[in-house]
Amino acid sequence: MANQEDIFKKVVSHAKEYGYVFQSSEIYDGLSAVYDYAQNGAELKKNIREYWWKAMVQLNDNIVGIDAAIFMHPTTWKASGHIDAFNDPLIDNKDSKKRYRADVLVEDYVAKIEAKIEKEVIKAAKRFGDKFDKEQFLATNPRVLGYQEDANTILKRLGKSLENEDLADVKKLIEQLGIACPLSGSKNWTDVKQFNLMFGTKLGASADSAMDLYLRPETAQGIFVNFLNVQKTGRMKIPFGIAQTGKAFRNEIVARQFIFRMREFEQMEMQFFVQPGTQKEWYEKWKENRMKWHLSLGLGEENYRFHDHEKLAHYADAASDIEFRFPFGFKELEGIHSRTDFDLGAHENHSGKKLQYFDHEQKENYVPYVVETSIGLDRMFLAVFSNALKEEELENGTTRTVLKLPAVLAPTKAAVLPLVKKDGLPKVAKDIIDDLKWDFNVSYDEKDAVGRRYRRQDANGTPFCITVDHQTLEDKTVTIRHRDTMEQSRVAISAIKEIIHQEVDMKTWLQKIG
Amino acid sequence: MANQEDIFKKVVSHAKEYGYVFQSSEIYDGLSAVYDYAQNGAELKKNIREYWWKAMVQLNDNIVGIDAAIFMHPTTWKASGHIDAFNDPLIDNKDSKKRYRADVLVEDYVAKIEAKIEKEVIKAAKRFGDKFDKEQFLATNPRVLGYQEDANTILKRLGKSLENEDLADVKKLIEQLGIACPLSGSKNWTDVKQFNLMFGTKLGASADSAMDLYLRPETAQGIFVNFLNVQKTGRMKIPFGIAQTGKAFRNEIVARQFIFRMREFEQMEMQFFVQPGTQKEWYEKWKENRMKWHLSLGLGEENYRFHDHEKLAHYADAASDIEFRFPFGFKELEGIHSRTDFDLGAHENHSGKKLQYFDHEQKENYVPYVVETSIGLDRMFLAVFSNALKEEELENGTTRTVLKLPAVLAPTKAAVLPLVKKDGLPKVAKDIIDDLKWDFNVSYDEKDAVGRRYRRQDANGTPFCITVDHQTLEDKTVTIRHRDTMEQSRVAISAIKEIIHQEVDMKTWLQKIG
Repeated sequence: MANQEDIFKKVVSHAKEYGYVFQSSEIYDGLSAVYDYAQNGAELKKNIREYWWKAMVQLNDNIVGIDAAIFMHPTTWKASGHIDAFNDPLIDNKDSKKRYRADVLVEDYVAKIEAKIEKEVIKAAKRFGDKFDKEQFLATNPRVLGYQEDANTILKRLGKSLENEDLADVKKLIEQLGIACPLSGSKNWTDVKQFNLMFGTKLGASADSAMDLYLRPETAQGIFVNFLNVQKTGRMKIPFGIAQTGKAFRNEIVARQFIFRMREFEQMEMQFFVQPGTQKEWYEKWKENRMKWHLSLGLGEENYRFHDHEKLAHYADAASDIEFRFPFGFKELEGIHSRTDFDLGAHENHSGKKLQYFDHEQKENYVPYVVETSIGLDRMFLAVFSNALKEEELENGTTRTVLKLPAVLAPTKAAVLPLVKKDGLPKVAKDIIDDLKWDFNVSYDEKDAVGRRYRRQDANGTPFCITVDHQTLEDKTVTIRHRDTMEQSRVAISAIKEIIHQEVDMKTWLQKIG
Repeated sequence: MANQEDIFKKVVSHAKEYGYVFQSSEIYDGLSAVYDYAQNGAELKKNIREYWWKAMVQLNDNIVGIDAAIFMHPTTWKASGHIDAFNDPLIDNKDSKKRYRADVLVEDYVAKIEAKIEKEVIKAAKRFGDKFDKEQFLATNPRVLGYQEDANTILKRLGKSLENEDLADVKKLIEQLGIACPLSGSKNWTDVKQFNLMFGTKLGASADSAMDLYLRPETAQGIFVNFLNVQKTGRMKIPFGIAQTGKAFRNEIVARQFIFRMREFEQMEMQFFVQPGTQKEWYEKWKENRMKWHLSLGLGEENYRFHDHEKLAHYADAASDIEFRFPFGFKELEGIHSRTDFDLGAHENHSGKKLQYFDHEQKENYVPYVVETSIGLDRMFLAVFSNALKEEELENGTTRTVLKLPAVLAPTKAAVLPLVKKDGLPKVAKDIIDDLKWDFNVSYDEKDAVGRRYRRQDANGTPFCITVDHQTLEDKTVTIRHRDTMEQSRVAISAIKEIIHQEVDMKTWLQKIG
């Protein structure tokens, strides 16, 4: 079994080789932490987005979708807290001129202490053999206990300093721990400064009248500022939701792990407006509902887990992540947050306008509470793609690379292959395409031996290969080959469309959510 | 018949009232020339995008779609010419502090001369009555000839000065013509300066290492820089196309006419790569093909016309607009451009990398020529929406407001209405929705008399109303009402789905393109 790093490298290179994801502006040597979706990737991304939209908007009578602009009035970000508090604490090394997140420097230091503990454990396990009891060892070994105490003390102090915005103490901590710049080895640090993660720009040409704008760092605020207009013109009754998908931007210092953390990314968010006091119940319902959506795609129950937050953001009274097992371990894929009336209340304060709902049943006005579900489309793409990529050993001793994407999400649903390039087989294949193309993305491939074409379509993620051979000319049947099982069967040309529909139609898959 | 301005006002207010388009950040008094798509608008926009995507990508074997990021390497915009030449000449009035496009000031002045000519024509027509020959009058009347000469001289000089970037002469022209600030009446002008229309931002936190980025002013360049990667990984053979939809941004000084010209907008572009020498033929084919796409939606042939450009941009060897009759007259909706090898050639020069294609049939390498089709999604939305909005006088003397959207694009395909709120009718209606919702966006409405609900759905653009009444309980039939004809017929519940499918499925509509 290959290690995590190798698997992840394979994911990245397969994504490029098969037209899923390209580095942005590659001919100009790339743009850091920005990626383009290529011909297959654009379709996969589009299908994931549509699968989410249908599940959230089309199937729910009380959820509607909107599409708000990336540009918003700057006061939006004052109200949301992003102008004042959407910061990373940064520190520069004066010798290397390299900039770091101060908290990450400290956390990396702590990770080294934890590595020392692990080393002690391995040493002891060797020494004690079968008799080794790890928990007892961790609880009693003086050296390990010392390390643990150090780690706890450091993390506690870091947490407190950040909470109190005592950046001078964060610097002092770095100096006391003797942390050096990983690049230069120098301990010559600047002060720690807060750096806002929003991208700024200017609207309007005149220097006097230019307005500072921000690229939205999240799509949620576009829903909050439109809440009352949607509720009134859509005649919505609480509880109801507003969903949207769209780009967001964050000037991340540490952007890495391919498309997992990008500076430009796409969110799929839904804000569900409820009566105050009922938010806990809706929060639980949405946790369950969103997990069902994930499981419906069949990536394996064992690859998901909830991570309930103990430390809550200032706007939340409950929060949980759905974590997925990426090639680099379990990481956040989606967040479900009970955001109280924080956002609508803040927009009331900053706009001077009422953002209240009159509840006809309760006969009262109130600012609704909000339960949010927020998923990164690019992360979902990476989850689906990395989960699908398999190297399989076949019975004949060879291996094949196959991209076992859920058929509902696959970019191309079927490839139609004439067995040979003559005897009129290409014409029959193209006629089949001309019939199927109204319903699905299909492709034609006549190059190379048919076995090689099967492998290519496997690696491409195409669920079906339809092969036209000489028997087709006689009895109007073709072989249809299934990507995952490699099983082939002979079916009438007239039956192909229905076979594909059964496997790829969104409604069949969505019905699993129930 | 109401005048153009009134019709346009009605379009804008209907768009807000029925949840199609909201002013961005309205609670903060709006953000100029930026709009949000509301619950119905988001669906209409999504459907238009999908209709385009299916026609371009799904139905064409040799066109694939990509989804490139908004952020691109800044050298992209050096190569494309946007850093050097994507400018408007601006001038400030020193008294009013108001900024204008210098060329628009001069053009408005010329428009006044033309108004004088028109006045002379009207005067003469009155004087001569039936005997008036307009062409003869224009060709012989000394005063008119003088005006015409003035207008021509001014426009010629403006054109030449702009072409030579002689901005001092543009200012001199404004002063010589005695043009005053429309706001203050002052003739106290600053120098004319070029103002770049791209929105800038900075990537990265460190002051030393921050990189100047631009929000892309067009999506096309995302296709050009990815051309070779797509061609190779997708095994594409020339002629082939790459399509994409996505946001673009322009810091327009004069942004107006609702969603017609916005600072943030969405494009749907396709670049078709061809062998040099064949571009003319493909240009003609794409003009025809794109017009067929428009006509397939049934907005009326009389509302479209081609406008072939005589003056060509530096990168083009042919260009034509498809113009649509908007409420404010015929305006550009889509552009078809033969862009030669300008873009790929420029990226070769600036990247130092070869962007060539090896043509196996011709046995030669070349930089392909490009034919582009480029349509504004927001403009298409406005075309469809404004064309659909009708005030109809009914036989009984009342009027109705109806939004006759093409059924394929309508946000909600059917509303299901229980005749009354009792006797189990709501339950039956909801069961029908639970069946239909897997296939379509449907809505439920039980409030108000059924006639009022029909009007509401008419104004909303919903093609079908399905009414559940007491007979439904006996024989499992409902009435189905067609929005445009208001005809009602009685059909079995089990037949509803197929009736709707026939009217709304994209494939049926796309087949009109052939």
